[in-house]
Amino acid sequence: MTTSASIGIVTPQRAHFDTPLALKSGGVLPAYDLVFETYGTLNATASNAVLVCHALSGSHHVAGIYADDPKSVGWWDNLVGPGKPLDTNKFFVIGVNNLGGCYGSTGPKSINPATDKPWGADFPFVTVDDWVDSHARLGERLGISQFAAVLGGSLGGMQALDWTLRYADRVRHGMIVAAAPKLSAENIAFNEVARQAILRDPDFHGGNYYEHGVVPVSGLRLARMLGHITYLSDDAMAQKFGRRLRHGEHKFHFGVDFEIESYLHYQGDKFAGFFDANTYLLTTKALDYFDPAYDYDGNLQEAMVRARAKFFIASFTTDWRFPPERSRELLFALMHGGRDVAYVELECAAGHDSFLLDDAHYHAALRAYFSNIEV
Amino acid sequence: MTTSASIGIVTPQRAHFDTPLALKSGGVLPAYDLVFETYGTLNATASNAVLVCHALSGSHHVAGIYADDPKSVGWWDNLVGPGKPLDTNKFFVIGVNNLGGCYGSTGPKSINPATDKPWGADFPFVTVDDWVDSHARLGERLGISQFAAVLGGSLGGMQALDWTLRYADRVRHGMIVAAAPKLSAENIAFNEVARQAILRDPDFHGGNYYEHGVVPVSGLRLARMLGHITYLSDDAMAQKFGRRLRHGEHKFHFGVDFEIESYLHYQGDKFAGFFDANTYLLTTKALDYFDPAYDYDGNLQEAMVRARAKFFIASFTTDWRFPPERSRELLFALMHGGRDVAYVELECAAGHDSFLLDDAHYHAALRAYFSNIEV
Repeated sequence: MTTSASIGIVTPQRAHFDTPLALKSGGVLPAYDLVFETYGTLNATASNAVLVCHALSGSHHVAGIYADDPKSVGWWDNLVGPGKPLDTNKFFVIGVNNLGGCYGSTGPKSINPATDKPWGADFPFVTVDDWVDSHARLGERLGISQFAAVLGGSLGGMQALDWTLRYADRVRHGMIVAAAPKLSAENIAFNEVARQAILRDPDFHGGNYYEHGVVPVSGLRLARMLGHITYLSDDAMAQKFGRRLRHGEHKFHFGVDFEIESYLHYQGDKFAGFFDANTYLLTTKALDYFDPAYDYDGNLQEAMVRARAKFFIASFTTDWRFPPERSRELLFALMHGGRDVAYVELECAAGHDSFLLDDAHYHAALRAYFSNIEV
Repeated sequence: MTTSASIGIVTPQRAHFDTPLALKSGGVLPAYDLVFETYGTLNATASNAVLVCHALSGSHHVAGIYADDPKSVGWWDNLVGPGKPLDTNKFFVIGVNNLGGCYGSTGPKSINPATDKPWGADFPFVTVDDWVDSHARLGERLGISQFAAVLGGSLGGMQALDWTLRYADRVRHGMIVAAAPKLSAENIAFNEVARQAILRDPDFHGGNYYEHGVVPVSGLRLARMLGHITYLSDDAMAQKFGRRLRHGEHKFHFGVDFEIESYLHYQGDKFAGFFDANTYLLTTKALDYFDPAYDYDGNLQEAMVRARAKFFIASFTTDWRFPPERSRELLFALMHGGRDVAYVELECAAGHDSFLLDDAHYHAALRAYFSNIEV
């Protein structure tokens, strides 16, 4: 990746929406903001727009850097930019922070106009459907009646899938990477342990920790440590850390002995320093609830009949959070429904996190697929 | 299993040891108790003794029931008894609670004679080597100069492996089930998240919670919930719980939505009600540190040269905590060293926990092996 291929300095934008958003949980957001970024130029017929949906801890900052912080590289910067697989010379790319998030879109940290205090525990439950509804409105605001593609990895892939069903005429290509059509019991189990760590942290204060001037650091830290175990593969951990000792010997203490422990502590501490606990809780519940086949007695093929898009699906052999068989569930449901699907199963050692890396085959697959999208 | 095949009512015994035990950590236990149970009768030549080593949350209560509690069935009662695979008509079977435990052997809950208070955080680190040393002394006390077999599952299997190396002439058969020659980085990672949950619980009080009259319930609960995810397989969870809802619909709350959550809460609450947090910490560290190849530059084959026993090794295809490839590491190290090894890889759906169940092939393998042990 050369510097010349970076989109360069980018600036987030904010869109305010006054029309209330009815949520799947039964609640209503009376008004809300969405923070987003765009890269490239929307063409005259608005046919070249690609929406990039973020995963659990991601944001609208997909590519480029901020002028005031040269370290602030977007989370999918290796993918999005001039000459990159998602080429901003061809496409107009949008990244948007989900509702309930903690990066600028309306969420639990935002001020609840009814109380003039942070929403905290009163912020309504949001779902993948709600995010997609709110992003569809952003599309309208930007003059996009149909997206060339909606792309996402992990939870972002679920949003892309949701788009193809609930806004079938507004998306030509659904691109779903390292995702699953729904969480397994084991996926839900990991989420629940992470949530319990936060909910039981005395500094959580029932979700209203903002007013107490504290953060449930221990809970967030545990949640992130656990998360990182599921993002990596057993093999990747073995290669990266193995049983390497931090101090060259067994110390017989409860501090750090092994490098893997040091890595998890570092990741946990970093995360607890910037991420919002309520956002973590809400987002994991949105993951748990997501199930397009829910209203179809669990029959995914029937659920997918509504789709009109073409599909790109990618999975990674070492991803044990959403392993290839989960992508194949979706693949077969789509194929049995006669849909046009490109599927690639990639051997990339990094586990679930592979979707963020620039593995050569993976990026070649994305580059080829995007190059064949007509705009 | 018929009632007539149960060993029936059993009574724990206690052995006190006055000779100080030098520990691998550098510490010394000046004196200690071991609580144990025996089933069957030691023969005249003391050649029919089988030591059963317990795993993380197990105890000396391997088989039978206590007279005052008909629900108190031993944790491996399906295996040990008259006519059972480990037949007490032939063998004299010993179960012993590990040092550092919380079921009667000297541990952090015990009174430290130097302070007249519970040991708490001052209890020294114990390792697999230390357990084996202390159990060897129990063997001497009982007049057993050589065990017919030492058997264990999971952490118990590591103790059995340790016996074959450090007391090579005192064990004729090392029987190692659902174990690994050492923990992987991922194994250590899970242990560390569980430990952090306990260490960061405000009720932990640096390990001296006994004097505060509290228990770090939240930490123990999280540790056990996480543990249970690793004891089951993804498939077993899918079959047992899937995405079944507790209340028939998504409740949009942080209480229990899915059956799998309810199961984990139940297991976590139960465990926190009886298990000691310091024991949990010490035992997971003993697991992390265990590595017979540590003094051999990681070369397991060289480490195993000392062994004189015959081996029985069993693994389960759905065990992702210690998957079959971890057992095969040991198998190949032994085979390259010319040792006599029986290895069986079993298709049992229950994941790591399979070693506790009475799968027909599994029990047939154990029965056949035990029946061929000469006493």
